[in-house]
Amino acid sequence: MSETLYDVVIVGGGPAGSSAAIYTARADLRTIVLDKDPHAGALGMAHVIANYPGVRSGISGMELLLTMRSQAESFGAEFAREKVIGLDLREHVKKAFTASGKMFSGRTLLLATGSMGKSSEIDGERELVGAGVSYCATCDAAFYKGRVVAVAGRTGEAVEEALMLSRFAGKVYLLCPSSSFSAPREDMERLTFQPNIEVMFNSRITSINGSGSVESLSLSGKDDPLPVDGVFLYLTGSSPVIDYTGGQLDSTPSGCLDTGPGFVTSVPGVFAAGDVLCKEIKQAIIVASEGCRAALHVDKYLRGRDKARSDYH
Amino acid sequence: MSETLYDVVIVGGGPAGSSAAIYTARADLRTIVLDKDPHAGALGMAHVIANYPGVRSGISGMELLLTMRSQAESFGAEFAREKVIGLDLREHVKKAFTASGKMFSGRTLLLATGSMGKSSEIDGERELVGAGVSYCATCDAAFYKGRVVAVAGRTGEAVEEALMLSRFAGKVYLLCPSSSFSAPREDMERLTFQPNIEVMFNSRITSINGSGSVESLSLSGKDDPLPVDGVFLYLTGSSPVIDYTGGQLDSTPSGCLDTGPGFVTSVPGVFAAGDVLCKEIKQAIIVASEGCRAALHVDKYLRGRDKARSDYH
Repeated sequence: MSETLYDVVIVGGGPAGSSAAIYTARADLRTIVLDKDPHAGALGMAHVIANYPGVRSGISGMELLLTMRSQAESFGAEFAREKVIGLDLREHVKKAFTASGKMFSGRTLLLATGSMGKSSEIDGERELVGAGVSYCATCDAAFYKGRVVAVAGRTGEAVEEALMLSRFAGKVYLLCPSSSFSAPREDMERLTFQPNIEVMFNSRITSINGSGSVESLSLSGKDDPLPVDGVFLYLTGSSPVIDYTGGQLDSTPSGCLDTGPGFVTSVPGVFAAGDVLCKEIKQAIIVASEGCRAALHVDKYLRGRDKARSDYH
Repeated sequence: MSETLYDVVIVGGGPAGSSAAIYTARADLRTIVLDKDPHAGALGMAHVIANYPGVRSGISGMELLLTMRSQAESFGAEFAREKVIGLDLREHVKKAFTASGKMFSGRTLLLATGSMGKSSEIDGERELVGAGVSYCATCDAAFYKGRVVAVAGRTGEAVEEALMLSRFAGKVYLLCPSSSFSAPREDMERLTFQPNIEVMFNSRITSINGSGSVESLSLSGKDDPLPVDGVFLYLTGSSPVIDYTGGQLDSTPSGCLDTGPGFVTSVPGVFAAGDVLCKEIKQAIIVASEGCRAALHVDKYLRGRDKARSDYH
């Protein structure tokens, strides 16, 4: 358990969260950014950024993101590789719980988890959630001791969860929907040392089959279903990532966080910015700007200032 | 007269205009940016930029701006050093007229002239406008042949207008309100070759005196007024720069351009973005984002698209 009370706990370290951290840290607010995986977001995955104003064309999305992070760190923001799986918003001090069992407390929260969530459901997914379909190996791996599971995804998160599952399961199929992973090299190297992980490229799940619990997966282009006891889904898409909020915050019919003026969610002290709001065209510059604007509103809220602060440097 | 019909004529080359040009040029829209002076804007004047997300701390505002410009140019945008002094918005094709006597025609206009206009009036200024008080040497210099004039300001525009006036006037006092100019080095070098220009630093005008026409200027800290026949004011402040629109566009009570959703002004095809709207906290990242967003709406308007285009690279 972390004993530190942060002024702001930022969930998500993409361009919105990192940009926000630059501004909150520079405003002398004690800031931590909880990020499950810098490679998992839309910017981190972008191979080449050409049109981010002020940054010469040709750098990768990851380079741009790492620059933002180092700026935020230079002003005192902390970053922790943590996946937030739940929030407690009932008290004045808000709490974020992570998959590693840690708790982070903040006078405010800023949710910037983006929109790389599942874009659509797989046939059978909804019926078998909790009966073999899972989104959190950290939570459920122990149920699969000695059994056969599949992990679907191409992100570092998917690779890491497969590695974690391989310590419990007898066999882990890692189903990559495309021809390569977007994951840190160190994770990929660890994969090669796990004999019970079998990587299958270009493998898309078309349906999850089973009566009562997961029995097999149908894969595109394959006649025979793959027998498994469970499947862990980390398929990224374009849906806002809000599952960890547990329905405690108002959302729009399309599943985006709903905010009023000043980037405030339906719970005072809880702010949101970036693609998780689905408000703007997806562009790194727009999302970074939203992070900045939300940060200034966090600062205003915390300091009870009349006006969010304004200066050019 | 320019015969080219541009898809978009952008007025103002600060972070809003330059960022917009990146996006319109990249969208294959024929783009020109008319900018009176890159050193005249809030960003161009900023000595150090520390908090622009994605750009390592420590560069100057001018370096950031020049990077944006070179990005826009690399996608095909043109930049011209032109001061826009009037607009013709009556026809489908919009026209911008510049102090150098040129006309630029665009299927759309994007106004991004910022908010470095005069912040407050000087005593006597309003009464003597057109009777010795001027804001445009290009327009009025010829009236002062052999006479004594003052130019007040610290920008490249002020220096350039003083140089222009020195070709007509017998004597030009260049009143710099602070201890240094924010002007291009080449302009400053040209100043030293004009014997009839006298530079006075730390000289603020407290009142403009005269009955019927300008006779003298009272300066802070000086007992005797400075006798002059005319005064040209280029004092920058924080008011939106909209004088060149000639009241053809709706503005707010505080003198900011009024826009609806999609950054459209009260005239279809005429868009506005950045500090001229006074909508947001003044931060380069926010203004650059607005330029991007407005550009995507210009593109949508021109192409009649259902949705402004979206992609991360």
